[in-house]
Amino acid sequence: MKKTCTFVLSAAIAVTAGVAFAGGHGGNPAVKARQAHMQLYSFNLGILGAMAKGEVDYDADVAQGAADNLAALSTLNQARYWAPGTDNEALGEETRALPAIWQEGSTAGQIGGQLAEAAASLAAVAGDGQEALGPALGPVGQACGACHEDYRAEAN
Amino acid sequence: MKKTCTFVLSAAIAVTAGVAFAGGHGGNPAVKARQAHMQLYSFNLGILGAMAKGEVDYDADVAQGAADNLAALSTLNQARYWAPGTDNEALGEETRALPAIWQEGSTAGQIGGQLAEAAASLAAVAGDGQEALGPALGPVGQACGACHEDYRAEAN
Repeated sequence: MKKTCTFVLSAAIAVTAGVAFAGGHGGNPAVKARQAHMQLYSFNLGILGAMAKGEVDYDADVAQGAADNLAALSTLNQARYWAPGTDNEALGEETRALPAIWQEGSTAGQIGGQLAEAAASLAAVAGDGQEALGPALGPVGQACGACHEDYRAEAN
Repeated sequence: MKKTCTFVLSAAIAVTAGVAFAGGHGGNPAVKARQAHMQLYSFNLGILGAMAKGEVDYDADVAQGAADNLAALSTLNQARYWAPGTDNEALGEETRALPAIWQEGSTAGQIGGQLAEAAASLAAVAGDGQEALGPALGPVGQACGACHEDYRAEAN
């Protein structure tokens, strides 16, 4: 029988053994989870962006799949990984998330809602043809940019 | 105006500029995407596993949120990141995905379907109380383990 890594086994025996597995191999688990989430946004946006720009042939099924993924990701429950105390002042270089995300007057949650709306609108038209992608990607990109501009530290 | 990283801008201007963004800062984009996907499985399983074991107080909303996340993640369209040619023989240490995933007779897709079913069943009961978690996590863990055992190389 092959060895399996901590996270695999942990799923299988979560109830019967004392294996801690969220977080994997170091680093703050919440930060790692939200960076993973962003990675999946990026991957799916990359597919759609390349088709919108004509760098890749339009494929209705692939476009629809990517847009559906974005819509689903944007509605995941992210409360646990946008956890208070996981900003860049608390954790340092591990994250670029600014404390303002969690401060009074933060619009981060609202922007998240705008992203979900924009992604749903994109998913509604992504299978309709290459021309539909560009206009529908605009509001998605605006939501991404709005949050990053106000709530993410500059890259070093 | 703050600088924004490649992936942010790329979303905003995907249609008008020639910025390539899927993949981020090196590494195979498909591998990075599926590892991100696994990271999100792990994070949400961690929440549920800790509650099931009594390490963390049961919270119906949190449990439901994590289980809903797992169910949504398990039904994402993953075809693009389980791309042929991205196994560990082709890419080396970057991935532990075995070529068998893509070979005739592979049951990886079938196991993925079992995971989706198990996650849906978990989501159906996750808000019902702490006792419901353990039995419902079992089949989820079995699906994780089945795929990892047959289709993932041992860790070095």
